[in-house]
Amino acid sequence: MAGVPIHETAIEPEWIDYNGHVRDAYYGLIASGACDALMDRLGLDAAYRTRTHCTLYTLEMHVHYLSEVKASDRVAVDVTVLGSDHKRLHAGFTLRRAPDGPVAATVEFMLLHVRQGDTPGSAPFPPEVASAIAALAAAAPAAGFGPGSRALRLSGGGRGG
Amino acid sequence: MAGVPIHETAIEPEWIDYNGHVRDAYYGLIASGACDALMDRLGLDAAYRTRTHCTLYTLEMHVHYLSEVKASDRVAVDVTVLGSDHKRLHAGFTLRRAPDGPVAATVEFMLLHVRQGDTPGSAPFPPEVASAIAALAAAAPAAGFGPGSRALRLSGGGRGG
Repeated sequence: MAGVPIHETAIEPEWIDYNGHVRDAYYGLIASGACDALMDRLGLDAAYRTRTHCTLYTLEMHVHYLSEVKASDRVAVDVTVLGSDHKRLHAGFTLRRAPDGPVAATVEFMLLHVRQGDTPGSAPFPPEVASAIAALAAAAPAAGFGPGSRALRLSGGGRGG
Repeated sequence: MAGVPIHETAIEPEWIDYNGHVRDAYYGLIASGACDALMDRLGLDAAYRTRTHCTLYTLEMHVHYLSEVKASDRVAVDVTVLGSDHKRLHAGFTLRRAPDGPVAATVEFMLLHVRQGDTPGSAPFPPEVASAIAALAAAAPAAGFGPGSRALRLSGGGRGG
């Protein structure tokens, strides 16, 4: 298990669809919650956002669905740094049925550091955040992520707002 | 505008995140609702699912985020058939701020027709559903989809359950 534990959640009743499983979009919501926890870990927390008017915007999200999650399950999420540059972070989340169940999904986020305001624009990570990303990347090597090749690439990003 | 209108929704208050916009994962939920509407249109509705024990499973979902959606917006979704084979459907959804706003996101789903039971397995579409897919593909050509190249490909699918 290559990732760093970052988030865990029970399943809310309204997440269950007509198939009796968690609806596809709610895997993304679980990963989005894990992304919030990742921001806190990297120092991009609420105090940072208030102080700097900077935050992360999601450019892309890609979910691979691998096994079902039901109402009685808990889901544990770990995070891997799949790539980064001076303003972007490519994060990989692995969702497992807790505590030792199979992988339910892998979710990749391409994230952009943005300064908000009248005309929001991308901004470089401050040094302390870049250091925190590097430390996390060292703790959670990208090689361990996913059941197959990664779907997103840094070289292809930078499109959205 | 190449797609066929399939779904429209207001924004629920709990979809708004700390940035003041719709949280990333809820774009996926809007598209998932559009996918339900698509199933109804193709004859894969609740009566079909009860009668045949067949349904669609989502193998992959890929969201490109293009512009922000706020609490006061409505979102209109249209659908394009990006590809299909005897058991899979690659659907592209375009989310716009209604009625004539910019594209907020494009969302691709790779969907597999599955017969549920003790050991769920993929199953071919029945002829009437295959015909409905073909008719929709004729009405909504894939060429009009998205701001760039598509993220998913039929040739790469078939992995999940």
